Amino acid sequence: MKTIPLIQFGLGGVGSAVAERVLAARDDFEWHYGLRLVYVALCDSRGAAINGDGFSHGALQRMLVAKAEGQSIVGLDSGYHHDGLRDIVDVAGTTDAIVIDVTASSNTTTALQLAIERGYAAVLANKKPLAESYEVFRNLVDSGRVRYESTVGAGVPVIASLSEALMAAHDPVRCIEGCFSSTLGYLTTGLQAEESFSELVRTAIALGYTEPDPREDLGGMDVARKALILARTMGWPLELEQVSVQPLYPAELGGGGVDDFLDAVHSLDDDYALRAAEAHIAGETLRYVALLQGGEARVGLQSLPLNSPLGQLQGTDNLIAFHSSIYDESPLVLQGRGAGVHGAAAGVLADIMALADHV
Amino acid sequence: MKTIPLIQFGLGGVGSAVAERVLAARDDFEWHYGLRLVYVALCDSRGAAINGDGFSHGALQRMLVAKAEGQSIVGLDSGYHHDGLRDIVDVAGTTDAIVIDVTASSNTTTALQLAIERGYAAVLANKKPLAESYEVFRNLVDSGRVRYESTVGAGVPVIASLSEALMAAHDPVRCIEGCFSSTLGYLTTGLQAEESFSELVRTAIALGYTEPDPREDLGGMDVARKALILARTMGWPLELEQVSVQPLYPAELGGGGVDDFLDAVHSLDDDYALRAAEAHIAGETLRYVALLQGGEARVGLQSLPLNSPLGQLQGTDNLIAFHSSIYDESPLVLQGRGAGVHGAAAGVLADIMALADHV
Repeated sequence: MKTIPLIQFGLGGVGSAVAERVLAARDDFEWHYGLRLVYVALCDSRGAAINGDGFSHGALQRMLVAKAEGQSIVGLDSGYHHDGLRDIVDVAGTTDAIVIDVTASSNTTTALQLAIERGYAAVLANKKPLAESYEVFRNLVDSGRVRYESTVGAGVPVIASLSEALMAAHDPVRCIEGCFSSTLGYLTTGLQAEESFSELVRTAIALGYTEPDPREDLGGMDVARKALILARTMGWPLELEQVSVQPLYPAELGGGGVDDFLDAVHSLDDDYALRAAEAHIAGETLRYVALLQGGEARVGLQSLPLNSPLGQLQGTDNLIAFHSSIYDESPLVLQGRGAGVHGAAAGVLADIMALADHV
Repeated sequence: MKTIPLIQFGLGGVGSAVAERVLAARDDFEWHYGLRLVYVALCDSRGAAINGDGFSHGALQRMLVAKAEGQSIVGLDSGYHHDGLRDIVDVAGTTDAIVIDVTASSNTTTALQLAIERGYAAVLANKKPLAESYEVFRNLVDSGRVRYESTVGAGVPVIASLSEALMAAHDPVRCIEGCFSSTLGYLTTGLQAEESFSELVRTAIALGYTEPDPREDLGGMDVARKALILARTMGWPLELEQVSVQPLYPAELGGGGVDDFLDAVHSLDDDYALRAAEAHIAGETLRYVALLQGGEARVGLQSLPLNSPLGQLQGTDNLIAFHSSIYDESPLVLQGRGAGVHGAAAGVLADIMALADHV
């Protein structure tokens, strides 16, 4: 039996789902894989709970209940400031530890770097540290102890397939195209069904598909970060500023509050209806696509043939198509639920299990 | 730099493609992964070439040229009989070795078992040893040192996704459906286009899509073995005889030679045309489907909605859809070229690289 200490940054939706999944899978992991996963530290934006000997099943469950009820898990006031996280990293006291970053913070990078220096492994669902400078990305990933499946397509094994089925098999990837936003998948499927853009935005908010400010999704930066991570995984030395991003709203709607935006967004309806109709006449449909080709990454709205993999995609599913020397006539395609805390938590678990074999 | 000795059983189409890929990827593997892959033994049905110190790049190339020209690579007469392969396994003399089974033989099992006992790892593109008794399967796979990506869907990461993205993430799979035969994909797409069954069979033979006797493909046993391997990967204790198999030709066409079969196969045309037309009227299409559900595995012709993942599949691509607790509303789908020596060789390479991290 091998014991792996876990240090988790973040205990929001995905973080709680990861901890719940670790609890639920405990017996299975011990039985089938001879692995015992033990939390030694968890922290959220308000502080940390630390136990060098490992939290018991019951203690962890009480923390999850407290968290779900809006209470604090704090045992030590550390939050997310760098020094706090760095202190927490030192708790594990063994190189077998895995640090799990399920925050949406850009302040975890130095703690992650410290963890890697200490010989730990790290799993990220957080895109931000991997979207900093290319040097930071390479330092983390080239350690061979960093995995980040959930940063693109949640639990759909996008990164594993790119790294292990294509690159490690010496099948160079020529081009990647994909839809990596459930929110924008919902919107473009709605445009295809002749619904109005502003109504779709309102419904997406009501369904909880968007960030509190929907412009976070409509601006394309989330998709751009995913495209950047894929490009860098292939060894393309891109920076985020080099990803060409086409937002779904004009710059003049970028200022002001959410309500101002929602008051003004109907002004875009006619234009989107026209573009959707033009696509329809051409036997195509609009999709918000990330395209990586020739060392460059672009994200934006495209009109694509209805019978193409991305044209056939409906609703909130994500899809990625890899074109390589082997997958030349038709691409290698992966499709599935690319959002939701359970998918993301499954991607984190898969990464933990893959690393547990190595640490 | 880590050196991994390779022992390869089989040097046909896939075997040669694997060796060529290892040669081509040599510098890349040393540079990016710090791995040196060195052949210490290769054998085909006529004998073996063995060099405990590892064959040089040039020697391996000469062997591949000789093989392509129909000459023998024999340095030692051993062929595939059990004792011969067992002797070869002992050549490596280190537990870091990986045995690669790219034969289509059912005689490699004891040598593979010996290799695992010795502490080696093994990669199989050969389905036969994994389709023997469930006990043999478990003995091999539970070692944690056996991978077999190419047995289902060639290089499409079907087994890795099932084992690592779903099972290791504690997301139990409820149902798998898929099309795992490029040949039968070609046939059913042709039936959808109102082509005659007998003409499609003849064209498939002419295009090299079938085994020399097309009944090997049409009988469904190849698909049944793939279904069995998937079921066993999920821990279902099935035997091959328990897989329900519906062949595409009646028993009375099973006897006799290939020419007799081809003379008689047109007698099936009207029936298939009728079934294709019935499917069309219902908004469906015929596909040769493997279905795993409730502990049971079935393979056979099914009529499926045109807008389902399998209904949308065209031509020789393979497709697999996993329904799990996370992928419940829509399945996790993988699609791509599931045949051809290069895809299979890429799957073998991916397995070698995954094991090289562990051996």
